[in-house]
Amino acid sequence: MLVDTKQKELPFIGLECGEFITPITIAYETYGNLNKEGSNAILICHALTGDAHAAGKFNEEDSKFGWWDKFIGPNKAIDTNKYFVISSNVVGGCAGSTGPSSLNQKTKKPYGLKFPFITIKDMVKAQELLIQSLGIKKLLSCIGGSMGGMQVLEWAITYPDKCQSFIPLATAAYQSPQNIALHEVGRRAIMNDPNWKGGKYYDTKPPNDGLSVARMIAHISYLSDVTMHQKFGRRIRKKDELNFELHNEFEVESYLEYQGRSFINRFDANSYLYITRAVDYFDYGDKKLREVLSQNSSLKNSKFLLVSFSSDWLYPSYQSIEIVKALQFCNIPVTYCEIDSPYGHDAFLLEDQELAPLIKGFLKNL
Amino acid sequence: MLVDTKQKELPFIGLECGEFITPITIAYETYGNLNKEGSNAILICHALTGDAHAAGKFNEEDSKFGWWDKFIGPNKAIDTNKYFVISSNVVGGCAGSTGPSSLNQKTKKPYGLKFPFITIKDMVKAQELLIQSLGIKKLLSCIGGSMGGMQVLEWAITYPDKCQSFIPLATAAYQSPQNIALHEVGRRAIMNDPNWKGGKYYDTKPPNDGLSVARMIAHISYLSDVTMHQKFGRRIRKKDELNFELHNEFEVESYLEYQGRSFINRFDANSYLYITRAVDYFDYGDKKLREVLSQNSSLKNSKFLLVSFSSDWLYPSYQSIEIVKALQFCNIPVTYCEIDSPYGHDAFLLEDQELAPLIKGFLKNL
Repeated sequence: MLVDTKQKELPFIGLECGEFITPITIAYETYGNLNKEGSNAILICHALTGDAHAAGKFNEEDSKFGWWDKFIGPNKAIDTNKYFVISSNVVGGCAGSTGPSSLNQKTKKPYGLKFPFITIKDMVKAQELLIQSLGIKKLLSCIGGSMGGMQVLEWAITYPDKCQSFIPLATAAYQSPQNIALHEVGRRAIMNDPNWKGGKYYDTKPPNDGLSVARMIAHISYLSDVTMHQKFGRRIRKKDELNFELHNEFEVESYLEYQGRSFINRFDANSYLYITRAVDYFDYGDKKLREVLSQNSSLKNSKFLLVSFSSDWLYPSYQSIEIVKALQFCNIPVTYCEIDSPYGHDAFLLEDQELAPLIKGFLKNL
Repeated sequence: MLVDTKQKELPFIGLECGEFITPITIAYETYGNLNKEGSNAILICHALTGDAHAAGKFNEEDSKFGWWDKFIGPNKAIDTNKYFVISSNVVGGCAGSTGPSSLNQKTKKPYGLKFPFITIKDMVKAQELLIQSLGIKKLLSCIGGSMGGMQVLEWAITYPDKCQSFIPLATAAYQSPQNIALHEVGRRAIMNDPNWKGGKYYDTKPPNDGLSVARMIAHISYLSDVTMHQKFGRRIRKKDELNFELHNEFEVESYLEYQGRSFINRFDANSYLYITRAVDYFDYGDKKLREVLSQNSSLKNSKFLLVSFSSDWLYPSYQSIEIVKALQFCNIPVTYCEIDSPYGHDAFLLEDQELAPLIKGFLKNL
């Protein structure tokens, strides 16, 4: 499947922080075709550092597929022969959508820290404008993992009449204090980098070392103790004996360094600050989720599928179960499954053998 | 109990890396008195960033007690009316023992990265010299948590005839790849700090920002998801509404920042590099522990008490159980207990109500 990323300029409504950006550009991809009735559209929401390129290749020579290609395509779980699939890059991002690295129309310079704070609700509002502009009145489903799952929940809360079903994966109704703490350490690492310069680095060397450390911390939280034992163990990189070096003695260290180093080529440090903050602010904890869900009686006619993964310690199963309980409390149909997996949080990207049939079956029965 | 930290200059044997330091200074404290038979001595081994000041105060005005004061003192679990307790700062440390910040006798400058690599075995060898110099032929017990627990295991392996019993707490027979990864991110944060200057910062501003980030990462791993919910939740620091700030919006963030900022006043960044590396190198994994334990037939006359904590994800219970299994395989008497606790890895410092009676009973029955 060959694809390309498009961009759409949209008018924009006010942000939760009280400010606004106008106009706003959203990068997106589509796969498959919208049917006559406009009833087969599915929105894919990406995770923290994802982008609009969820499936396919840009050209035949491309060695890499989109980040959820295992799930999206002809005859796959999200079957592009049947469904019209839309995947968009979030506002605040750095892969074609308006974000801190974009040109501020007022100053003709990149926003940097002048970019207003964004929230998950703002991301979803931008997506809704995009969906409208594509002529879609109601989505068949909205699907996403991690931060993408938070967007799916926000769709149910903000636009309950504009989507028929919801698939939040490996996610939570609120960011836990442990996860806020992990994000904060990453932000500190970026802002401590002398190249960060208060966010004004777009004409100079960007804060690569800091962003790289932030990615390394995050990457640890995406894996699990079990998968790290299986994948790396205590294997030494160069030879069997210890070399007595402060870095890259162990395979797990060079793997992490590689993850950090490749991340800086595709991500903007200021976007990382803003998007982690948006996730931190996501909060339908305590009884808030019940309250907002019960206000939308139309949700009783929708359907939810939630999936969590046994070794995910970033968004552990108990957080998915809290969502399931709130849905059940509000009498909203919900199916929940915990998949036994060693892959930690990354499982929602990797466990296609287990996860794809669940999604396929759920969509088929709508 | 008023105490003071003493220092002893010792000759030193070769290090595991092949180099040597001579002479070597070890900082230590003692509590209680050695009996005539010299049979009531207990060694306390500290964790990653601990020091010799395990119990008591330096003077009446002191607001803080030693790091394990809940356990050590008159009539406490490690009763200084009965036992002669020795606590020493590890080699490589920065609280009175020879480490990277010490003066290299050859160059008359601080060692910095010229300091040789040290291991847990080297720490234990230095302790053994200290014990000898204090006129103790055989310890009654050796006790420690986390990295201290690794030293306890190393005592059993290297000096099985010189200690009668062993109490390794919240520890492991090897550093897991996940923990190596967490250490590596901390080291990167330090070495990315422009003030680190290849370790030559002793005449200039030290790499405080980097060391602070390293401490923040580590601190997250010492707590648990549960205790962070209980202690901070998602409480906002300044007021009830969001302030839209990149830092210190949430209580958990300002707590972490405080932990990072206070750490820099008491710890040397190069020591942090060397000591985390020593822990990373600790490896009696797979069948290695069985092999080394079975070589020492005298261990069959010793006793072990192991304790782990249910919410400790840094050194999870399964790693203590692996040690218990190896001891049982070698027919060495061992008692093991998992204490149900929300406090994560820090539980070995905090769960005195549960842990102290276990230690007291074990020592009494020797």
